[in-house]
Amino acid sequence: MIDYNPKNWWKFIFYFHKADTFIKLMPAMLGLAAYTAIFVYVENNILHYVPIKNPLTIHSLVGFVLSLLLVFRTNTAYDRWWEGRRLWGNFTNNSRNFALKLATFLPEKHPAKETLKILIGNYLHAVKEHLRGKAHISSLTFTENYNEEYYKGFKHLPNRICQAIYTEIHQLHQAGLINAEQLLVLNNELSSFTDNLGACERIKNTPIPVSYNIFIKKIIFIYVFTMPITAVLEYKFWSIPIVTLVFYAFAGIEIMAEEIEEPFGTDANDLGLDNMVKNIKGNLAEIL
Amino acid sequence: MIDYNPKNWWKFIFYFHKADTFIKLMPAMLGLAAYTAIFVYVENNILHYVPIKNPLTIHSLVGFVLSLLLVFRTNTAYDRWWEGRRLWGNFTNNSRNFALKLATFLPEKHPAKETLKILIGNYLHAVKEHLRGKAHISSLTFTENYNEEYYKGFKHLPNRICQAIYTEIHQLHQAGLINAEQLLVLNNELSSFTDNLGACERIKNTPIPVSYNIFIKKIIFIYVFTMPITAVLEYKFWSIPIVTLVFYAFAGIEIMAEEIEEPFGTDANDLGLDNMVKNIKGNLAEIL
Amino acid sequence: MIDYNPKNWWKFIFYFHKADTFIKLMPAMLGLAAYTAIFVYVENNILHYVPIKNPLTIHSLVGFVLSLLLVFRTNTAYDRWWEGRRLWGNFTNNSRNFALKLATFLPEKHPAKETLKILIGNYLHAVKEHLRGKAHISSLTFTENYNEEYYKGFKHLPNRICQAIYTEIHQLHQAGLINAEQLLVLNNELSSFTDNLGACERIKNTPIPVSYNIFIKKIIFIYVFTMPITAVLEYKFWSIPIVTLVFYAFAGIEIMAEEIEEPFGTDANDLGLDNMVKNIKGNLAEIL
Amino acid sequence: MIDYNPKNWWKFIFYFHKADTFIKLMPAMLGLAAYTAIFVYVENNILHYVPIKNPLTIHSLVGFVLSLLLVFRTNTAYDRWWEGRRLWGNFTNNSRNFALKLATFLPEKHPAKETLKILIGNYLHAVKEHLRGKAHISSLTFTENYNEEYYKGFKHLPNRICQAIYTEIHQLHQAGLINAEQLLVLNNELSSFTDNLGACERIKNTPIPVSYNIFIKKIIFIYVFTMPITAVLEYKFWSIPIVTLVFYAFAGIEIMAEEIEEPFGTDANDLGLDNMVKNIKGNLAEIL
Amino acid sequence: MIDYNPKNWWKFIFYFHKADTFIKLMPAMLGLAAYTAIFVYVENNILHYVPIKNPLTIHSLVGFVLSLLLVFRTNTAYDRWWEGRRLWGNFTNNSRNFALKLATFLPEKHPAKETLKILIGNYLHAVKEHLRGKAHISSLTFTENYNEEYYKGFKHLPNRICQAIYTEIHQLHQAGLINAEQLLVLNNELSSFTDNLGACERIKNTPIPVSYNIFIKKIIFIYVFTMPITAVLEYKFWSIPIVTLVFYAFAGIEIMAEEIEEPFGTDANDLGLDNMVKNIKGNLAEIL
Repeated sequence: MIDYNPKNWWKFIFYFHKADTFIKLMPAMLGLAAYTAIFVYVENNILHYVPIKNPLTIHSLVGFVLSLLLVFRTNTAYDRWWEGRRLWGNFTNNSRNFALKLATFLPEKHPAKETLKILIGNYLHAVKEHLRGKAHISSLTFTENYNEEYYKGFKHLPNRICQAIYTEIHQLHQAGLINAEQLLVLNNELSSFTDNLGACERIKNTPIPVSYNIFIKKIIFIYVFTMPITAVLEYKFWSIPIVTLVFYAFAGIEIMAEEIEEPFGTDANDLGLDNMVKNIKGNLAEIL
Repeated sequence: MIDYNPKNWWKFIFYFHKADTFIKLMPAMLGLAAYTAIFVYVENNILHYVPIKNPLTIHSLVGFVLSLLLVFRTNTAYDRWWEGRRLWGNFTNNSRNFALKLATFLPEKHPAKETLKILIGNYLHAVKEHLRGKAHISSLTFTENYNEEYYKGFKHLPNRICQAIYTEIHQLHQAGLINAEQLLVLNNELSSFTDNLGACERIKNTPIPVSYNIFIKKIIFIYVFTMPITAVLEYKFWSIPIVTLVFYAFAGIEIMAEEIEEPFGTDANDLGLDNMVKNIKGNLAEIL
Repeated sequence: MIDYNPKNWWKFIFYFHKADTFIKLMPAMLGLAAYTAIFVYVENNILHYVPIKNPLTIHSLVGFVLSLLLVFRTNTAYDRWWEGRRLWGNFTNNSRNFALKLATFLPEKHPAKETLKILIGNYLHAVKEHLRGKAHISSLTFTENYNEEYYKGFKHLPNRICQAIYTEIHQLHQAGLINAEQLLVLNNELSSFTDNLGACERIKNTPIPVSYNIFIKKIIFIYVFTMPITAVLEYKFWSIPIVTLVFYAFAGIEIMAEEIEEPFGTDANDLGLDNMVKNIKGNLAEIL
Repeated sequence: MIDYNPKNWWKFIFYFHKADTFIKLMPAMLGLAAYTAIFVYVENNILHYVPIKNPLTIHSLVGFVLSLLLVFRTNTAYDRWWEGRRLWGNFTNNSRNFALKLATFLPEKHPAKETLKILIGNYLHAVKEHLRGKAHISSLTFTENYNEEYYKGFKHLPNRICQAIYTEIHQLHQAGLINAEQLLVLNNELSSFTDNLGACERIKNTPIPVSYNIFIKKIIFIYVFTMPITAVLEYKFWSIPIVTLVFYAFAGIEIMAEEIEEPFGTDANDLGLDNMVKNIKGNLAEIL
Repeated sequence: MIDYNPKNWWKFIFYFHKADTFIKLMPAMLGLAAYTAIFVYVENNILHYVPIKNPLTIHSLVGFVLSLLLVFRTNTAYDRWWEGRRLWGNFTNNSRNFALKLATFLPEKHPAKETLKILIGNYLHAVKEHLRGKAHISSLTFTENYNEEYYKGFKHLPNRICQAIYTEIHQLHQAGLINAEQLLVLNNELSSFTDNLGACERIKNTPIPVSYNIFIKKIIFIYVFTMPITAVLEYKFWSIPIVTLVFYAFAGIEIMAEEIEEPFGTDANDLGLDNMVKNIKGNLAEIL
């Protein structure tokens, strides 16, 4: 995630960094400009054929439908991105509350505190890696009881770490260090870890229905490539920047939606998971 | 559900697979093209009658209302689809949490673990089948206590399996293996199974009010079939692709909404329930 | 509620049943057609007066605002309809969970099971009648303790039945058949009955603010009745179908919103409460 | 709140009661009509100056942005109104559930029932008065323990009454009349009273950001007062009704949003709090 | 936050205070007016070049997409602002409920009441400062146990204060002053403090994805700076106010969204946190 000051207009207008939609669309825009230029040249110098009088009426009509679809696309993509952020915010909150409760319930310097601090850190790290592809045992911190042996052979690593946390709490409960009401008090955070993970997996594994993706791209394509046919008459060589910019406006919105709809990666618009995991670990170290 | 890379533009623009809205609408589009062609021919070669000067003003006006209705339709259909996904995500989360808690609460190798693993697996399988029509006893895995006899004669199979889970937990509670606070801790997941099932049934059994369905289809029909009357004057034979593409844009959105509003089937846009049930069973096997 | 196949286009385009908006608007549409016809006749044959050159610009502008208001209207009406459905889905879920828990907690063939099955059935029946006007004692099933005497004189019948359920559970609790943790486990469903009822009453008793209703109807009226003034010039006798269809599009959306915003009645678009109560009773009979 | 039948078209079109937006805007509409009339007269009879050819293009463009802003305004205002209604629905539900539980837990005719009935009635009454300005001690019903002395000097009266309810429940708990699980069962409703009150205060004390209010009013003003400049050319004296009606459409939406965004007052569109408090008291009297 | 009467039209139309978007945009508007003036002068007196006939068609098309994007921007910014308000409403509710419960559970004049009153006050003050940059130990109120020493060296001050609250409650629990069910009853509010803080941090640290910010600003820039090219032909010197006002409409919406999307600062549109903290402290003083 890029940290930025949203009020800086000039920077955003004239600065083009690598994550910018403008840069990403540049090749397509150049191709489209060339295509339109050829079109204009042929029409103006060779054909002189006038197919339609009121050129952009149809594009106006379809442009309206397309815009509304793109708004739908943007809203759903943004909801996914923001829900992803909310879920990681929940991870932060749960970790803090869990740590605060453990810190209070357990006697000072009890070894379970250290173990649970490591396990929660492992859990969040593994969830992050899991969402980015595959979590590896080698990147975990081992403790005496929860060592390489404990994790080996398990495909779903976050679940296994969660099981370690449950086991640890259960043992404290059985040893009488956590009483009945304290177990109930800890249960919300415990269940919430798995719920959050499941919700993240849902966002990652379920793109919007493929029909919409196909449909929007087809309509943008037809829209932009038929535009010179009708624009050439009225705008002549001005058609080149016009068609290019209309393409920028429509395709840009689609491109941005693609970028944010799966927010757990490492792109410029993705959530800063590395940083968040680091912050949570810092919080845990202060509390426990 | 089709797994795909949403960033692949060219594939989506030029590849037409069987689930594509374009293919589905092809027959109607061809018919409409023929209808428009006849219209254009009659008008240009026989009638030469000019009814209206500013041809598409009215279609522009009504097109706006229609677009907004289609956006409403798309939003509600998508909300149903996404809620369906969310509910199955909850099934995943509940199963995992339930399994993690049982794994911790019960002594290792306790036979109830195996029984409950089978029952939860049965439950999810039966829910899936129930949502797709009728769940059959024959596809369940039986245990000693919960055998064919136990399920026979019950119309609502998922409820019956849920009752088996409740009974099993109750017996563990009475045997003192699950204490008071642990029963409370397990209750959320238990209630949630039935709540999720009810919500899925709600989505399945309640299409959007029939008036909207009739209304949108009538308006699209009137809109498209009156279009040649006004378009023919200005666009002549170009009316054929224009009317066809406008139809594609409007009817396509309605068709896609129809596809996703009932997400528990086996169409290309439906949720991958088979896969999800398989994944959950895999998770349960690792945990319990 | 009408059960239908949303994918059947031809049926919806050409079939006009009694709940169809088209039929409902028919008288108004015929009146409007006559009004426009007179207008066109007077203008073309008597007045020959040309007030405005670009006729529909203003209607285009106001049509936009009106469309957005109608979308707002549709969204709020649909939200109420869907929330009503969701609340009755909750009734289903609560009844099932409540029955599943009772079935497990109480010894087999305990008479309280039968009593509670009757009370829940009574409750849902009374809620349904209450939402449709007035619930009558005579339609309830009486038990030994909760007989006509028990209900007589109470204005809010569902509350009284709920009190019977609470009393029954309390007696089981005091008799030691339901222990502390089981009481807690039952509490969610118990509270939820009253919460759902309250939410249904909210939807029933609170139509959207009267200003919006007045405003939308006034604007549609002004819009449609001034349309012939400007349309007659350009479209002549074609104005008649045009004005009628524009009216159909706008008034249809308002009419449909009116139909679904209070979803507990017995209209074609209302929720199938009779069926739902019957289904829940069937579920209860299977479980308890 | 005005109770009305939303399906009565003719009444709403031709009946103008005092809460009607039309009546409220009448003076401004008359002023605007006069302003436009002068404008038209000067232009047609004195100036004959033609500034712009395609008159309403710019107003069309800006009208679109303005419409979308007004939709945003309407949605947020309606959400506040509906949330206010929902919160008072929660007050109803909580009071009922609380009363049902107390009626069951406490022995018949126990004096605490009467006390708590009075306290809840006091609470809702005080909340209502608090939201409408200032709650006065004199309008409360006193009991032996919670008399004028008890309330005197407290600025936030609802909080003080809530404290009385908490104290009463605590004493019943300490006297052994309410056991541990029953206290937990009552806790949701108790906390919910304060949560609902806080949410109502939030709606009352937080209007939408002042910038939006300023911006929308400025844009409507500029929009309407520049309209005659461009409309006069094409529509001449017809400009007078046109400008007036466009103003009615835009300003009406803003006026209605202003009316409903703070729903706890005593205007025609505000919620019927007096009635709701009376109903809840009736329910309490039946149950306790 | 500015407290204002939303129904005062004239004030908002003619009064320009420092927080007004109009004042903020004034320099840019003047610059743009000068730019357009030069453009008009050159075109009318020197070039006399006519590039395009139907000047604003393209701006109309792109203006539509831009408007929808700005609505998306406004909705997301407002949701953040309103969620921020809701979270601080939760802080109010939690503090009140927490105080009401403590006041009832603990014996009168128990010293822990005073300590917890100070700690909650400290917590809310620290959260506020934390959201505005950095919370300083020096602004806290110290007690005997929770003095400067206790807080020193901790980076995340609110977490540390929360730990003090947890410790205090734990000690009361261990001393038998708070029993098991009372601990459970207090747990919701305790967890909620941290959850609210985490949600506020989420809003503060996560601006909308940078792509949207860049994209909207680029499109507004291109839109406004190309407008004179096409407007000059038809509107001549009238282009100056027209372009300026269109810029005001578009840029104003973006500016307002920027103002409210991070609502914890001290700008005119930000939430009145200082006031809220003061009010909560007043409530606590009355209750405890």
